[in-house]
Amino acid sequence: MVSRVESRPGNMPNGATRLLAIVGDPIAQVRAPAFWSAAFGARGIDLLCIPIHVPPADLLPALRGLQVMRNVDGIIVTVPHKTAACRCVDRLSARAAAIGAINMMRREADDSWSGDIFDGVGFVDGLAAAGIALDQRRVLLVGAGGAGTAIGFALAHAGVREIRVFDTDGDRAVSLRDRLSHGAGPPISCVDAPDPSDVDLAINATPLGLRPDDRLPLDVDRLTPATIVADVIMKPRQTRLLRAAAERGCRTHDGVHMMDHQAPHAADFFRFPGHDWSVETVRRLVENEQSPGGR
Amino acid sequence: MVSRVESRPGNMPNGATRLLAIVGDPIAQVRAPAFWSAAFGARGIDLLCIPIHVPPADLLPALRGLQVMRNVDGIIVTVPHKTAACRCVDRLSARAAAIGAINMMRREADDSWSGDIFDGVGFVDGLAAAGIALDQRRVLLVGAGGAGTAIGFALAHAGVREIRVFDTDGDRAVSLRDRLSHGAGPPISCVDAPDPSDVDLAINATPLGLRPDDRLPLDVDRLTPATIVADVIMKPRQTRLLRAAAERGCRTHDGVHMMDHQAPHAADFFRFPGHDWSVETVRRLVENEQSPGGR
Repeated sequence: MVSRVESRPGNMPNGATRLLAIVGDPIAQVRAPAFWSAAFGARGIDLLCIPIHVPPADLLPALRGLQVMRNVDGIIVTVPHKTAACRCVDRLSARAAAIGAINMMRREADDSWSGDIFDGVGFVDGLAAAGIALDQRRVLLVGAGGAGTAIGFALAHAGVREIRVFDTDGDRAVSLRDRLSHGAGPPISCVDAPDPSDVDLAINATPLGLRPDDRLPLDVDRLTPATIVADVIMKPRQTRLLRAAAERGCRTHDGVHMMDHQAPHAADFFRFPGHDWSVETVRRLVENEQSPGGR
Repeated sequence: MVSRVESRPGNMPNGATRLLAIVGDPIAQVRAPAFWSAAFGARGIDLLCIPIHVPPADLLPALRGLQVMRNVDGIIVTVPHKTAACRCVDRLSARAAAIGAINMMRREADDSWSGDIFDGVGFVDGLAAAGIALDQRRVLLVGAGGAGTAIGFALAHAGVREIRVFDTDGDRAVSLRDRLSHGAGPPISCVDAPDPSDVDLAINATPLGLRPDDRLPLDVDRLTPATIVADVIMKPRQTRLLRAAAERGCRTHDGVHMMDHQAPHAADFFRFPGHDWSVETVRRLVENEQSPGGR
C-alpha cells in the first residue's frame, strides 16, 4: 500500500505521504511515532507514524474519521482504547475475538478494516529473545485487564506448566481464568494474593509503576532469586518493581521488549514493504536515523 | 497552542507532536505539508503539517474526526472542500460568510472551531509584493467558482476601477456579480467572452491549466503587452496560459504567490509561535530546512 520514495529530506512529509496513526489517551508518552517514522525514513518508505490524542468519549468519531482518510493505511490502538476499538473493525482475528481487544487496525484493499492484537505475542517473543524459557514454567500473572488478558492468551499457547492469575478485582481474575481454561492449555488458577514465592516467572500486567508513587503490584518480600520478574510498563523502563526485584537478586525484564518485539508482527500485519523487519534490524535502523550523525 | 521543543531530529514526530492537517481530494500535489513542516522544524516548533486525503462524500466524518483529535490544532481546507467545510465550524469570519467558503479552520481554547478564507487576500498580497498595482485598474476575472469568488471579494476591497466577470456557467457569473455589487465597491459586470483586450489585469481563476491538454481559459489572441496575466494554478507553475501570455509580451504572475502570501495570514490565524512569519522569512526557513545542507 505504501510507496518508496527516492528521498524524503529530514523525513519531511509531503502531499503523497501515507499515514500510520497511533491513537491513545494520553498520547505524549508513546514511542511509536518516532520509532516507526525513523524506521520508515531509513528505508525510504514514504509513510509517517503520527500521534492522535483522543479521549474515550470521542474514540468512535476519531476512528471513523481516520478510516475515511484514504491515505491512512493503518492505526495502532493503545491505552485505553483497545477494547472499544473492536467495535470499529469489520473483522477480528480469532485471537482478538477471544481476547476482546485489538491494538492494530489495517485498511484492506476494499477499504474494509481488520483488527488484531500483538501485545501477548510481542511479550512472549521478547522473553524468548532474552533467553527466558517458558516451557514448563510456573507463571504468576498480576493484572487481568487488557495487557494481562493478551499476555495470558499468549502464555497459554507458549508451553508453560501453569498460570496463576491475580487481580485486585477478583471477578476480573475469575473471568480471565475461565476464558483461558478452554482447550488444551495449561492449568489456570486464581490466587488470593500476588505471592511470587514459588513461581519461575512473575509478570506485572497492571498499570502500577507508571507513576513513582504507585504501590508495588506484587509482594516483593516473598521473591527469591530464582524468580524472573517481568514488567509491561515501558516508561519508566526501570520500574520500582524491577528495581526491588533486582535488589533481591532476581533477573528482570522490562516492558520495552514487549513493544519492540511487536515490530515484526506489525510489519507483517500492516504489510510494510521490504523483508527484514526483525527486532535487531529495526532497532538499528531507528538508532541510526535518530542519531545526530544520521540524516 | 503549540509548544517549542529543544530539538526534533530530522523533524521526526514524537508522541507530543501537534498536528496541522491539510484536507483535499486529490492531495498528493499539495505543497503545504513540506512547506509548513519545514518552517516549523526550522523554528523548533513541535508541529507537523500532514496531508489528509478525503473524497467529498466523506468530508464531514473526516473533519469531525480531526476535530475530536485533541492534538490537531488546525485544518487547512483545499479543493474541492472549501464550500462544504463551512458547515463544520462553529463560527465564520464575515469574509468567509460572504464568500461561502473557508480554507482554514482553527481550534479555539474551548474546543470550538472558527473558519476563515485567505485565498483572496493571499492573491492580492502576492500581486502587491510583485509590484503589480491594483489601484484604478480594470480587471478581467475568469472563473466565478471558489477561487474566483475569493479573489473577487478581495479585489473589490483593493481599489480596482472595475471587475468584469466571466464564467462558462453564466448563472454563476451573475451570482458572483450580484454578491460583489453590494456596498461601496467598484462597478462589477458580467461579460460574454473571456476577452482580455482592454483590461490591465486578466486573472485565470478556473482549474484550466492543471492538465497539459486543458483548453486556454481566455482568448490569448486578444492580449496586448500592456495586460498583466495572472494564474491561480500552482502546478505547473508555468501554465500554458502564462507561456502564451509571455510570448505575447505580457508580464505574468503565477499561482504560487497566492499560496505563499497566505503564510503570514495563516501564522496569524493559527497563532503560530514567534513573530516574523513574513513571506521572505518563511521562504528562507523552508529553503534552508529542505536543502541537503540543512539538518
